[in-house]
Amino acid sequence: CISLSSSPGYVAVSAFLSVASFVLAFKLIPAISYMFLEAGLAGFDQNKRDKVKVPEGLGMVSAAVYLIAMFFFIPFRFQSYLVSAGDGPFPHDKFVEFICALLSICCMIFLGFADDVLNLKWRHKLILPTIATLPLLMVYLVNFGSTTVMVPLPLRFILGISINLGFLYYIYMGMLAVFCTNAINILAGINGIEAGQSFVIGVSILAYNLWQLYKDRQVASQELSIFLLLPFLGVTLALLLHNWFPSRVFVGDTFCYFAGMTFAVVGILGHFSKTVLLFFLPQIVNFVYSVPQLFKLVPCPRHRLPRFNPKTGKLGCSYAIIKEEDLTPRTRQILSIIKKFHLAEVDETNAAEIKMSNLTIINAAIRILGPQTESRLAMYILLFQAACSIFAFFIRYQVAGLVYDTVH
Amino acid sequence: CISLSSSPGYVAVSAFLSVASFVLAFKLIPAISYMFLEAGLAGFDQNKRDKVKVPEGLGMVSAAVYLIAMFFFIPFRFQSYLVSAGDGPFPHDKFVEFICALLSICCMIFLGFADDVLNLKWRHKLILPTIATLPLLMVYLVNFGSTTVMVPLPLRFILGISINLGFLYYIYMGMLAVFCTNAINILAGINGIEAGQSFVIGVSILAYNLWQLYKDRQVASQELSIFLLLPFLGVTLALLLHNWFPSRVFVGDTFCYFAGMTFAVVGILGHFSKTVLLFFLPQIVNFVYSVPQLFKLVPCPRHRLPRFNPKTGKLGCSYAIIKEEDLTPRTRQILSIIKKFHLAEVDETNAAEIKMSNLTIINAAIRILGPQTESRLAMYILLFQAACSIFAFFIRYQVAGLVYDTVH
Ligand SMILES: [Mg+2]
Ligand SMILES: [Mg+2]
Repeated sequence: CISLSSSPGYVAVSAFLSVASFVLAFKLIPAISYMFLEAGLAGFDQNKRDKVKVPEGLGMVSAAVYLIAMFFFIPFRFQSYLVSAGDGPFPHDKFVEFICALLSICCMIFLGFADDVLNLKWRHKLILPTIATLPLLMVYLVNFGSTTVMVPLPLRFILGISINLGFLYYIYMGMLAVFCTNAINILAGINGIEAGQSFVIGVSILAYNLWQLYKDRQVASQELSIFLLLPFLGVTLALLLHNWFPSRVFVGDTFCYFAGMTFAVVGILGHFSKTVLLFFLPQIVNFVYSVPQLFKLVPCPRHRLPRFNPKTGKLGCSYAIIKEEDLTPRTRQILSIIKKFHLAEVDETNAAEIKMSNLTIINAAIRILGPQTESRLAMYILLFQAACSIFAFFIRYQVAGLVYDTVH
Repeated sequence: CISLSSSPGYVAVSAFLSVASFVLAFKLIPAISYMFLEAGLAGFDQNKRDKVKVPEGLGMVSAAVYLIAMFFFIPFRFQSYLVSAGDGPFPHDKFVEFICALLSICCMIFLGFADDVLNLKWRHKLILPTIATLPLLMVYLVNFGSTTVMVPLPLRFILGISINLGFLYYIYMGMLAVFCTNAINILAGINGIEAGQSFVIGVSILAYNLWQLYKDRQVASQELSIFLLLPFLGVTLALLLHNWFPSRVFVGDTFCYFAGMTFAVVGILGHFSKTVLLFFLPQIVNFVYSVPQLFKLVPCPRHRLPRFNPKTGKLGCSYAIIKEEDLTPRTRQILSIIKKFHLAEVDETNAAEIKMSNLTIINAAIRILGPQTESRLAMYILLFQAACSIFAFFIRYQVAGLVYDTVH
């Protein structure tokens, strides 16, 4: 493993490309959104007084600009090895990390765009991302190969200081990609929320990388992550500005897949996949909270986004309707648990049709804060995401010290 | 540069994957073509009695199956280095060739699918493929770096034995990708022709690789090309069978881009890009022949495919109509040249509207052979492609000996 020459200059170039890709994406998205409308890639915005047709899947433009930016960055990153009498033998092992990262991300963009256009089935959405991570897992195996993880202090008397997870660790990494891509896709439904949460997660990971870099810890890993994240943040911000309330464009599955895979890639190649998961706290909570509906233990309507009230102009909870004839004993049992712990609003006044507020953290926010305008609600969710990131830093640097000897 | 352990076993595995991807693509294409219809990705088959709506862009399924096959092949190819006490240090430089090849191909598939869905502009079709070859050119620079080409014997008294083309050689390689992708897209318009010509070109390159391998010449390059081509031929044949007359599916830009980039990649990474171009002889002839129309020197209708005659059930020439008021002096001049050399049928009986048969080799074939049924016409074009491949072998091994000292 040849170490890569490091220089703040490369971060500066990456930051420049981030700004350049922001500008390009910001101009391109409105300029070519008519193509999406013409292609029938459009959806109606449910939460507006006048239901307008909004072009869907514009994350594809952000993703394409991102790939272009990275294609220009990579030769630059390795230029000192490309000249004769340069920095020594070419670091193929580092080069292949970049290329594998982009290959996995590019496959995922393709898959996301296919999903926007063709509406793929659930089995495709689970199998294909797993396959798309194969090159990534292979470069991990070749370049690091370590599947040994430290055992938390309280468990060491059973398991010893460290444990080699072996093949299980690769399964975990493969599942990470599937989780990241789908987790963002599930916390969706109001203007600006997909791009917004991705931007907050991206900034959080970047802050973590910069802090580790400042402390001189695993410099190469942090730099790789920074180089992959900076242009990502540029194109995501450009998309967010067009997708913010009132949305002129929708981001589509393309963007969720693109963002999720980018986070999985930096986590895996940067060896901080557990830290990345910490920044997904709202998504994890939302996923766990959604489980009864996602796995059809209680009925799940096609869309769970909050419902617009045209009188107040605000968003209120949306509900799942459970017909009496569909009430199995198991459904009854789960409903009573949900009711007991106030997990959702359950309205049984009409015995023939029970109403349950949908199990999403967006609905939970409305239950706690009351009905909100769409932009305010999006802002609250993003503030919650940011607060969770601060909490994640606390866990990463404070609590981890209690369960591990050393925290890097 | 570490040399890669070679074994016929890997070719056998690749051949097995080729068959497996044929079977998978052959089953998937009809099974999910309804999704394309639902998404509005469909076109009317112009050359049929009953104009039926045919799903368009199914090359995307072939391409996805191809990527999956390669993702399974790569870990297998390098497995002997992945075990401890294996074949020595991991050959990152060889690994990165595979990954770069797939990255360029995957970008191109994404671009092609975007073209099918969004109908990209010409500037996108020229700029984006060039950018997609950047990783490829970089791995070429790093792994080989030689931009020195042998000078043909008759020119050596001016230029010397060899000449270093330097940067020009990279421009040539970048243009090769743009040429290959667009050349297949231009020779199109009748059932089975895009997949058919790609299949013939692929088999020709494979035959060349096997012959070079048999002669023990540049073994690593030939193997890389074989590994990339075998699954390609599998998915292409599957597509061809569904796309053959009467087409149940259309291949779309996705397939043309995918096929073109695959050929460019094997040519560039296998160091036989000039030989690859030899197998594109019909496409080159068709391109040169089309130049007056492509560059609008004479009028060019939106579609140049041959015209179906419902009475005979056969395809006849299609024509461009040139109105008298559009006849500039330059157009007149070019028309007179075309007429003089019988390059096209020019009908001037109606002075107000001159009719000129479109400048494609498909129309040329109809002029020579007379009107044909669609399947027969496709067969003749493919036979011509195969004949050109035999001629290309003759040039490669016989004529090249006259202009170069040694031919490998
Ligand atoms: Mg979808
Ligand atoms: Mg098109």
